[in-house]
Amino acid sequence: MSKYGIVLTTFENEKQAEPVINEIIKNKLAACIQEIKIKSHYIWKDELCHDDEILVLIKTRKEVYPELEKKLLELHPYETPEILMVDAEKGSKAYLAWIDEQTGKG
Amino acid sequence: MSKYGIVLTTFENEKQAEPVINEIIKNKLAACIQEIKIKSHYIWKDELCHDDEILVLIKTRKEVYPELEKKLLELHPYETPEILMVDAEKGSKAYLAWIDEQTGKG
Amino acid sequence: MSKYGIVLTTFENEKQAEPVINEIIKNKLAACIQEIKIKSHYIWKDELCHDDEILVLIKTRKEVYPELEKKLLELHPYETPEILMVDAEKGSKAYLAWIDEQTGKG
Repeated sequence: MSKYGIVLTTFENEKQAEPVINEIIKNKLAACIQEIKIKSHYIWKDELCHDDEILVLIKTRKEVYPELEKKLLELHPYETPEILMVDAEKGSKAYLAWIDEQTGKG
Repeated sequence: MSKYGIVLTTFENEKQAEPVINEIIKNKLAACIQEIKIKSHYIWKDELCHDDEILVLIKTRKEVYPELEKKLLELHPYETPEILMVDAEKGSKAYLAWIDEQTGKG
Repeated sequence: MSKYGIVLTTFENEKQAEPVINEIIKNKLAACIQEIKIKSHYIWKDELCHDDEILVLIKTRKEVYPELEKKLLELHPYETPEILMVDAEKGSKAYLAWIDEQTGKG
């Protein structure tokens, strides 16, 4: 496992996502955040739902994950937002150094 | 490694993807499935191909992976569909509990 | 950790991405490469940037990662391109064999 991770969450739309994204970046909890248009399928309160959403990929350092999760739970409008982190096993030296720098470790 | 994973596969289009997606969710083999429009590049039978496809991200529990893989291979129209699983090293407590619940473990 | 991984990088647009993608596939450094339209948010030289970009997912064998990283750094127009690799913990037997074959190991 490395020191770096990619955190995934989703929002209803860009308007809902972007204030949270800006807040996370300004608080140095991520180096880069990417938005992707998706269609989500899931069962919520016994009903099969099909919604357009925005998937957000947050590239960060694992050391800040607890604070990032806390900030997401604080700012997120969903009752139970998706928050998952995937290990970034490897990366180019310069890019990882940039993540360090952008998340207050550089 | 955690108990949770994200399984990736692809389909030609939404029409092809959605019956399989609904089947997986109804069989409690995933909590949430996300569709993303992509362009794929690969060599197939010595020819460099460039196709519009749908990438599907399946958020689930690793314990059901063998059954999920079997179901995907059974239902998938491709000869050799992409089926990869990535470890979800961390996640928010409530979201992981929701995955447990949606995949028959709650 | 498995022998397989998914490498992520980004480009400004498809026109910039596709010559690099073709080069990587022809050099057997990846089995399949997927392009996704995204919106990126990050701070660059003290300015909060919001750019349309292309996220590229490169499905490959970890053994070729050093060469793949070298090739990306050689061909990529960015000063510090994102290059991260995520472990593909599991996959269907046939698909993993196909990755082996496409990356010169089959």
